[in-house]
Amino acid sequence: MQQLIYTHILPNGMTLLAERLPHVRSAAFSFMVRAGGAYDPVDKLGLSGLLTDLITRGAGELDSRQFSDALDNLGVDRSESTGGINLHFGGVTLATNLTPALKLYADLLQRPHFPEEELEAVQALAIQDIQNLEDEPQSKVMVELRKNYYPDPLGRDQRGTEAGIEVAKIEDVRQHYAKHFHPSNVILAVAGDINWDMLRKDVETLFGGWKEQTPTAYPISPLTGLEAKYVHLQKDLDQTQIALIYPSVPLVHPDNYLARAAVGVLSLDMSSRLFMEVREKYGLCYSVYASYEAFQDRGSILAYAGSRPEKAQETFDRTLHELKRLPEGIEEEELQRVKVGLKASLIMRQESTGARVSSLTSDWYYLGRIRTLAEIQQAIDELNVSAILDHVKRFPPKGITVVTLGPQPLKV
Amino acid sequence: MQQLIYTHILPNGMTLLAERLPHVRSAAFSFMVRAGGAYDPVDKLGLSGLLTDLITRGAGELDSRQFSDALDNLGVDRSESTGGINLHFGGVTLATNLTPALKLYADLLQRPHFPEEELEAVQALAIQDIQNLEDEPQSKVMVELRKNYYPDPLGRDQRGTEAGIEVAKIEDVRQHYAKHFHPSNVILAVAGDINWDMLRKDVETLFGGWKEQTPTAYPISPLTGLEAKYVHLQKDLDQTQIALIYPSVPLVHPDNYLARAAVGVLSLDMSSRLFMEVREKYGLCYSVYASYEAFQDRGSILAYAGSRPEKAQETFDRTLHELKRLPEGIEEEELQRVKVGLKASLIMRQESTGARVSSLTSDWYYLGRIRTLAEIQQAIDELNVSAILDHVKRFPPKGITVVTLGPQPLKV
Repeated sequence: MQQLIYTHILPNGMTLLAERLPHVRSAAFSFMVRAGGAYDPVDKLGLSGLLTDLITRGAGELDSRQFSDALDNLGVDRSESTGGINLHFGGVTLATNLTPALKLYADLLQRPHFPEEELEAVQALAIQDIQNLEDEPQSKVMVELRKNYYPDPLGRDQRGTEAGIEVAKIEDVRQHYAKHFHPSNVILAVAGDINWDMLRKDVETLFGGWKEQTPTAYPISPLTGLEAKYVHLQKDLDQTQIALIYPSVPLVHPDNYLARAAVGVLSLDMSSRLFMEVREKYGLCYSVYASYEAFQDRGSILAYAGSRPEKAQETFDRTLHELKRLPEGIEEEELQRVKVGLKASLIMRQESTGARVSSLTSDWYYLGRIRTLAEIQQAIDELNVSAILDHVKRFPPKGITVVTLGPQPLKV
Repeated sequence: MQQLIYTHILPNGMTLLAERLPHVRSAAFSFMVRAGGAYDPVDKLGLSGLLTDLITRGAGELDSRQFSDALDNLGVDRSESTGGINLHFGGVTLATNLTPALKLYADLLQRPHFPEEELEAVQALAIQDIQNLEDEPQSKVMVELRKNYYPDPLGRDQRGTEAGIEVAKIEDVRQHYAKHFHPSNVILAVAGDINWDMLRKDVETLFGGWKEQTPTAYPISPLTGLEAKYVHLQKDLDQTQIALIYPSVPLVHPDNYLARAAVGVLSLDMSSRLFMEVREKYGLCYSVYASYEAFQDRGSILAYAGSRPEKAQETFDRTLHELKRLPEGIEEEELQRVKVGLKASLIMRQESTGARVSSLTSDWYYLGRIRTLAEIQQAIDELNVSAILDHVKRFPPKGITVVTLGPQPLKV
């Protein structure tokens, strides 16, 4: 099955990516803007989150309420998010409503009002979001893990700080917008029942007049993982939250598929090692997983487990043991399962317009091109045990940062 | 677009439902078995959850590990869940792997091993799941809300109790299985790129020999919501969790669409009243919503808000105010947005095989037939303000049960 993938860079630098999925009736779209938490001024951490919330509160000729109503009238299931590096604005709607929805987002991106009278409510929400985290230990431990492992600004929690949010003025939000919202910082991806020529013309009409500026630089910071580190956060909880992280390869690295396959052996499905060895065999913890995450210049392997305090030490030891013994060998059968799992999720993901939009954006952002499903399938087919073992020997669990949150520290 | 929907009841009483979605490559399947938490013996609460976990640990000729591997080899993205009334076992896979996957589930449902040596680990996991709840205040308050509102056994938390889980023996699991796992208690739904004649033949071959028994009765208990009730649970949290519930109509009731539309006015998208009035206008809370839930014999309206303790009283008051003022009037424009929102989500849901399987099962279970999308769209089109207002006047927020979890009680 041939994929219908299109890319176009507008003369002002804005990128448009699209995939036609002729058998669906919906269309998903996503604007990614390089203006995330890493670009917050150090005394105003949380500013980009305030912007993300305020930017939807009125744009073009519509005030806050009218703008929200207009999107809802089109049945747009919308979402906004603040990331470490990028902000995301997007939604899913019926393909027939795509053009009017993009028209509203053209206003949102180019002509937002940032109403001062709504700033206080937005600040209150942002502060609540930070306070909520105290009641969500599983999220909290991951936030603390990244803070302790990545150098600033990569390790920041995009929620910011209460102090930073409180001092921010509407002028700060407007300055952050003026500095980072311009076409060369924006990738728009669309997937669904689209007509490429019409979409391209629409986007040129709606965004072609946006003034060009130099793209925002990627925040340079030293590579991590040179030294092991352990941080315990004391809290009276019923579960001990355990998280760890160590260096792997970035997405653009030729070893990328090998890194993912190695994580797959540990944690892909219910036959994977962590689930089987730590959860099923010993009933040590309810939840345990490993995952891979990447920035443009680096990648990492993360692992998480939540366990009763009296079993936390054994849970940690067994999890670490599974990570460390990976270079010792992988069964051919395990690899086959990982291949099937990776391919099945790839093909099933293809059926959702929202997932396709994420893939288009992510490929373009990290690799500068869009991989076809056939290319990814072929790379998965070519995986073999010896190449994966070579990779895990080259990138063993070293320089591990461990963070625990709970009633007692562990021996690490 | 005509829908290709099929239903068939096997001579032994098992129900098969299917929908052909010719443009996808995946197939989703779900077995619903009437054997949930409401059927646990009172001194062994949590038994059905133990069964749900143990039943995947070996069946037919495969032991625990082999069974798990066999599913993973087919790329089945599987899930099991224990509900109040029903258990669910299902997954999504490539349509080409559907038959071998159903073959494995035929073993799981009819020939499970329930290995005694794995019971202890399963009990440990179940107890951790209960203990986890203490660190998840938002889930905890909803569990306590249902416990306080619905009469036993409907109000039970399907997680059970530590005492109930600890005393359960493998014989109890086997007895629960023998009592409830028979064809007339089972609905199998499949959606995807299927061939109905082949599927039906496969299912008859795989499940036709399963011995018929009388279906398990629905657990009768008195109707709820006659008296208002307030319960506060003291806990040192950074957020006060607020939940409330009151009676509405069951799914089979002719007012069902009216009840959903009324909840839609309150809480469907970002223009809805609760989000606008409680969250956006005053920044009182980060999360606030209302929803509708139904059992076979009753329905309820629920509302939730999580707020900083010092703003909890105002959050509660404003939320309640929005519920109470609904009968006073609904703007035509609000209804139009609800109609667009309900229809858009309906059409977009249609694109996921997993969502279609849930709809097939739910329609059959609650209504005894399967609604086409055209029928639901027509019912949504016919909604009008005066009918919704009549409905909310007949089913106002009365006999409300309120549960709060946090540092201080509210004035209710």
